[in-house]
Amino acid sequence: MRLLLISNSASPGEGYLEKASEHICEFLGNRPLNIVFIPFAAVTYTYDEYEEKVNKRFSSFGQRVVSIHRAQRPIDAVTRADAIVVGGGNTFILVKKMQEMGLLEAIRERVLGGVPYIGWSAGSNVACPTLCTTNDMPIVQPRSFDVFNFVPFQINPHYLDAHPEGHGGETREQRIAEYLVANPNRWVVGLREGCMLKVEGTQISMQGDKTLRVFRHGKETVELKPGQDLHFLLQ
Amino acid sequence: MRLLLISNSASPGEGYLEKASEHICEFLGNRPLNIVFIPFAAVTYTYDEYEEKVNKRFSSFGQRVVSIHRAQRPIDAVTRADAIVVGGGNTFILVKKMQEMGLLEAIRERVLGGVPYIGWSAGSNVACPTLCTTNDMPIVQPRSFDVFNFVPFQINPHYLDAHPEGHGGETREQRIAEYLVANPNRWVVGLREGCMLKVEGTQISMQGDKTLRVFRHGKETVELKPGQDLHFLLQ
Repeated sequence: MRLLLISNSASPGEGYLEKASEHICEFLGNRPLNIVFIPFAAVTYTYDEYEEKVNKRFSSFGQRVVSIHRAQRPIDAVTRADAIVVGGGNTFILVKKMQEMGLLEAIRERVLGGVPYIGWSAGSNVACPTLCTTNDMPIVQPRSFDVFNFVPFQINPHYLDAHPEGHGGETREQRIAEYLVANPNRWVVGLREGCMLKVEGTQISMQGDKTLRVFRHGKETVELKPGQDLHFLLQ
Repeated sequence: MRLLLISNSASPGEGYLEKASEHICEFLGNRPLNIVFIPFAAVTYTYDEYEEKVNKRFSSFGQRVVSIHRAQRPIDAVTRADAIVVGGGNTFILVKKMQEMGLLEAIRERVLGGVPYIGWSAGSNVACPTLCTTNDMPIVQPRSFDVFNFVPFQINPHYLDAHPEGHGGETREQRIAEYLVANPNRWVVGLREGCMLKVEGTQISMQGDKTLRVFRHGKETVELKPGQDLHFLLQ
């Protein structure tokens, strides 16, 4: 299995997918591929606009995605894909549409068979067992919170330490602590902006200029640097 | 129908329910009531602790809640209650437990029959048609996102304008904009901390020292002061 799970598309002041660009390029290789793009996390902009934004970046390294909303037979498009890319946006609407279209099963089968998978934000979240560590608003109800289950741990994308001063709402750390009480047998990985996880078969590594914050119920929360061993997450 | 829907229990530096205290006291009246408390939004502390925290405040104005987790027959406790109080915490776990125990229907019936209802944070959110405008992490999956539907609009509790600098995640306003695209026929009310909505039959009013931010798809977002007309929200 080959996965590139990116925290976010861009932080303020960065170009779209700018930071992840060289990693995506290297992950996909030099040969132009038939890449299927899943745009369904988009809510406040069109799928056409989303595809164009992604292609503006992908064309800089000689690749091109085709958004699945153009496909007459979406499942067939997945079956023929050389690589699958799932973009960020709202996780709930992404999962709902993929469930309705039968894409969860179709994509899962291909990726387990070795087709490279790239996701960012919501697209990384759905690589986990469930959507339960998303930051998104539940604007629609998916049939189930179960998603791809490519990795046995949960990612919290856009992980951040900051909390608005004087605000009484939960911090991100408190939210994850709640998740862990309700789900004591899962690892949660706080993937800070600008960071990504790469899985190649049984190998897993983190890239980025920040540390990874790793949570588990009843264990001390730890910060892991790029290059530190992450194999325990896959067990 | 009588509802007191409070944004939050406390902002940093305030005592628990301190700001809402006089409004809760006035809403319940002087006679000591049989008040049932729903503690199921608690995740990282016990129901006993939650009940105690609430009673510390309620005792200051001569009232006392009994948490439903002590009841042998929870539905009977609701049937006998003079008032119902639903505390904040995690909305998803609150809704899941209420659905499993049959409390959604039992409480709804009583409140539609005139029993006063007080909620804060998650407890205000569940007074709406759905939980879809919660800020909470979906740590467990409820059977349905449908909740009490006492009011026909959605509340976003803990509404805030601030956004961590340099962070690429969605602002609260962007999250609500996404909700509105997916649900164009609903009003959303951004209820800032320290504010509350009071419904008495066909009357609705806002109390607090901040303005209410009111959203609807295709309409200009407005800020309403305490005392301004809110009847359109109930239509």
